[in-house]
Amino acid sequence: EAKEEVKKLIPADVPELLEELDQNSYLILFRMLPKDTAAEAFSHLNQEQRWYIINSITEKELKIILDELFFDDMIDLLEEMPANMVKNILKNTKEEERKLINQFLNYPEDSAGSLMTIEYVDLKKEMTVKEALEYIKKTGLTKETVYTCYVTDANRKLEGIVSLRKLVTSDENLTVEEIMDREVIYGHTHDDQETIAHLFKKYDFMAIPVVDKEGRLTGIITIDDIVDVIEQENTEDFQKIAAMAPSEEEYLGTGVLTLAKHRLTWLLVLMISATFTGNIIERYDSILQSVVILAAFIPMLMGTAGNAGAQSSVLIIRGLALGNIKIKDIFKVIWKELRVSSLVGLILAFVNLLRVYYLENVEFKIALTVSLTLFTTIVAAKIFGCILPIIAKKLKLDPAIMASPLITTIVDALTLIVYFTLASFIIGL
Amino acid sequence: EAKEEVKKLIPADVPELLEELDQNSYLILFRMLPKDTAAEAFSHLNQEQRWYIINSITEKELKIILDELFFDDMIDLLEEMPANMVKNILKNTKEEERKLINQFLNYPEDSAGSLMTIEYVDLKKEMTVKEALEYIKKTGLTKETVYTCYVTDANRKLEGIVSLRKLVTSDENLTVEEIMDREVIYGHTHDDQETIAHLFKKYDFMAIPVVDKEGRLTGIITIDDIVDVIEQENTEDFQKIAAMAPSEEEYLGTGVLTLAKHRLTWLLVLMISATFTGNIIERYDSILQSVVILAAFIPMLMGTAGNAGAQSSVLIIRGLALGNIKIKDIFKVIWKELRVSSLVGLILAFVNLLRVYYLENVEFKIALTVSLTLFTTIVAAKIFGCILPIIAKKLKLDPAIMASPLITTIVDALTLIVYFTLASFIIGL
Ligand SMILES: [Mg+2]
Ligand SMILES: [Mg+2]
Ligand SMILES: [Mg+2]
Ligand SMILES: [Mg+2]
Ligand SMILES: [Mg+2]
Ligand SMILES: [Mg+2]
Ligand SMILES: [Mg+2]
Ligand SMILES: [Mg+2]
Ligand SMILES: [Mg+2]
Ligand SMILES: [Mg+2]
Ligand SMILES: [Mg+2]
Ligand SMILES: [Mg+2]
Ligand SMILES: [Mg+2]
Repeated sequence: EAKEEVKKLIPADVPELLEELDQNSYLILFRMLPKDTAAEAFSHLNQEQRWYIINSITEKELKIILDELFFDDMIDLLEEMPANMVKNILKNTKEEERKLINQFLNYPEDSAGSLMTIEYVDLKKEMTVKEALEYIKKTGLTKETVYTCYVTDANRKLEGIVSLRKLVTSDENLTVEEIMDREVIYGHTHDDQETIAHLFKKYDFMAIPVVDKEGRLTGIITIDDIVDVIEQENTEDFQKIAAMAPSEEEYLGTGVLTLAKHRLTWLLVLMISATFTGNIIERYDSILQSVVILAAFIPMLMGTAGNAGAQSSVLIIRGLALGNIKIKDIFKVIWKELRVSSLVGLILAFVNLLRVYYLENVEFKIALTVSLTLFTTIVAAKIFGCILPIIAKKLKLDPAIMASPLITTIVDALTLIVYFTLASFIIGL
Repeated sequence: EAKEEVKKLIPADVPELLEELDQNSYLILFRMLPKDTAAEAFSHLNQEQRWYIINSITEKELKIILDELFFDDMIDLLEEMPANMVKNILKNTKEEERKLINQFLNYPEDSAGSLMTIEYVDLKKEMTVKEALEYIKKTGLTKETVYTCYVTDANRKLEGIVSLRKLVTSDENLTVEEIMDREVIYGHTHDDQETIAHLFKKYDFMAIPVVDKEGRLTGIITIDDIVDVIEQENTEDFQKIAAMAPSEEEYLGTGVLTLAKHRLTWLLVLMISATFTGNIIERYDSILQSVVILAAFIPMLMGTAGNAGAQSSVLIIRGLALGNIKIKDIFKVIWKELRVSSLVGLILAFVNLLRVYYLENVEFKIALTVSLTLFTTIVAAKIFGCILPIIAKKLKLDPAIMASPLITTIVDALTLIVYFTLASFIIGL
C-alpha cells in the first residue's frame, strides 16, 4: 500500500519529503516513484539533491529520467553534469537529437535560448479547427503547454498563434488561418532573460515563442520558468545592493569558501576606499583636538546621510528594474529628490538641533554646525543616490551596484569634509 | 483608417501610447478604442492615468468599462474611486451583484480574496467530456481562464478540477467525474497573498481556486496577478531593507510629501539611536585625545562592519522570503556565518594590518588594535546579521526590517566599544 501512496504524490511535494529521509530511504523512495513523477520531481530538486541522485542511480535509470524530462529541464540537467557523463549519454543519442542538444547547450546563460523548451503544439494554417483539435488530442499530453499553439510554414517560420480557447470556442469548420492571431509578440534566442520577463509582465502571457536569427520558431518559454527568472533576478539585485557578487545557489547548499569569496571583493574595495575618510579626519585633527566633542557626532552624521542615500538609490534601482523609471526621467527624478531631501533634511536638522542644544546642552554653535551638516549631507546623499543608478544604467552597467555600500562610502567622505569646513567657519577655528 | 489602426492595438500597449499624448488627444484616443480593448487597457493604466480618465468620462462610459472588466479588476477600480461615486454606481446594480461587490470590497488588502475573480468555468461531475466542451464553447469567451475548470456540487463545494488539456485529450463519452483531479490544492479567502504566491511558485500553477470558510468555491486567482504580487512583495522588501515604509505607488506618480513621509520615520529612529554611538565616543574621549590618530580609523571600522552585517542579513532575509531558509535552520545558519565571517574577517584584518603598518607607517600597536577590532566586529556583525532576521520571523515580524540600517546602528555602537576597549589594553592607556 506504500506504493499506492507514493503514486499519488505531487512531484513538487517530493523534495520536502526527501529532505526528511536519510540517503538510503531517499533513494528507495525515489526509485518507487512512477517514472513521470520521478522526472518532474527531479526538476524540482535543488542542486545538492540532484547531485546525490545523479551519482547514485545507474546510467540506465538516469537515461529514463532524461527521456521523461521536458527539453529545457533536460538541458539544465546536462549543464550541471560532468563533461564525460554528458559525452556518455550523448553517445547513445540519435544524430539529430544530439545536434539539437548541442545547439541548446550553447545558448548563453540567462538568454531566452537557455529557457526554451521544444515541446509546443505546431499547427499548419490550412488545418481546420476540427483537424487542429484532433491533432492536439493525439499529441497534447506530451507537450509542455497546449494552451497556445503555434502556426508555422514549411520553413518553420512563425506565421501566427492561436489559443486553445479560440480553438474550442470556434466553429470547427473554420481554418486555423481564419482564426489565428498574426500580431505575434516573440523573443529572440539571444535576448536577455530579463527582457523576456518584462514581456510576460506587460502582456500577461502564459508562454512566448522564441525565434532564431532567420525568424524560425526554435522553442517556447513558459510562465512557470519566467516566475523563477523573476525571483532569480530579484535575488541578484538584493545581493548586489548588499555588496555581494551575485550567486544563484541557495544559501544553505553553498560552501563556506564560495560564500566568503562572494563577499570578499566588495568588502575589500569598500574598506580600502574608506581610507579616504581616515585621511580627511587626519587632515582636520587639529580641529578635533581643540573641540573633541565634534568627534561624538561623526557616527550619527555619517549614518544618517548613508541611510538617506540608501533610500533614494534603492527606490531608483527598483524603479529602473521594473521599468517604471527610465533614463530620460533623470531630471524629473532629481527635481523630486531635491524637494524630498530638503523637506526630510530640514525636519531631521531641526529635531537634531533641539535635541543636541536643549537635551544634551551642547554649545549652540556646535549644535548648529551638526544640524547644518545634517541638512547638507542628506540633500547631497539623496542626489547622489538618485543620480548614480541612472548613470550606471546609461553606461549599460547594472544600476543595482550603485546602492548603499558604495554611496555610503562616497557620502562618508563628503560628510566629513562638510562637517569640518562648517565647523571651522561657525566655531571659528 | 486611424480607427482601423486603433482597433488593432494590444491593450497592454495603450498606456505607453497615452503617455505620449496631451490630455485632450489622450481622451479622444481612449474613446476610439473598442470597448473590450478600452476596458483591458484601462486595467493596465497606472493610478494617475486611471484617475484622469475616471474624472473625464461620463458616468455612462464608466459603467460600460466597469461592465467589461473582469470582476477582480472592477473591484480594484471601485476601491480607488471616491465613496459617493461608488454609491452612485452601485445604485444602478442588481441586488445580487451589489451584495457580491460589497463582499469582495470587504476582503482585507493583500488577502487572497482581494486577488480573486469570479469568471471561472464551473462544471458538474455528471457532465460528459462532450457536454463540458460544449459548455466551454458557449461560455468560454467570457471567462478569465478556461484552462482549468472547477467541479462543484449543488452547494458550490469544490469537488475537483479538470484541465482543458485533459478534456480535449480524453474520450468524449467519459464523465467529468472520471477524469477530474480530486487532490486539489486551494487557497482560503483570508490567506495572505504571499502564501498564495508561494503555492504558485511551488506547483507551477496557472490558476488556483479559493474557497470560503465553508469550503465553497468563491473565486480563482490567475498567474498574471500573482506575477504582480511577486514584484510588489519584492518592492516592499527592497523598501524595508533601505529603511523606508513600504508603498505600492510608483515613484514618479508619488507626491513629495508622501515620499518624505515614508522616509522620515526610520531616518528619525536611526538618527536618535545613533546618539548612543556619540555617547560612547564621549565616554572614551580621553583615549581619543591622547591618541588622536585612533579617530581616523573609526569610519573605516564602522563602515566595514556595517557592510559585513548587511551582507549576511540580506542573504538571510532573502532566503526566508523564498522559503529556502526556515526558522529551524538557525543553528546551521549561525555555524555557517561563524566560519564565513572568521575567514572574511581574517583576510580583511590581515590586509588592513599590512596596509596600515607598512604603507601608512602607523605604530604597530595601533595597527594591531585596528585589525583586531576589524576581525571581531566583522564576526559580530555577521552573527547579528544572520540571527536578527530569523528572530524577527519567529516573532512574526517581517524579517526585512532587520536589514543593514538597523544592524549598522547596532554594529556601530559595538565597534566603538570593542575598539576603545582593545585600544586601552593594547596601547596601554
Ligand atoms: Mg543569473
Ligand atoms: Mg536552461
Ligand atoms: Mg501583468
Ligand atoms: Mg520548463
Ligand atoms: Mg521549470
Ligand atoms: Mg541578470
Ligand atoms: Mg538584474
Ligand atoms: Mg484586488
Ligand atoms: Mg516553479
Ligand atoms: Mg485578473
Ligand atoms: Mg490583472
Ligand atoms: Mg506584503
Ligand atoms: Mg513581504
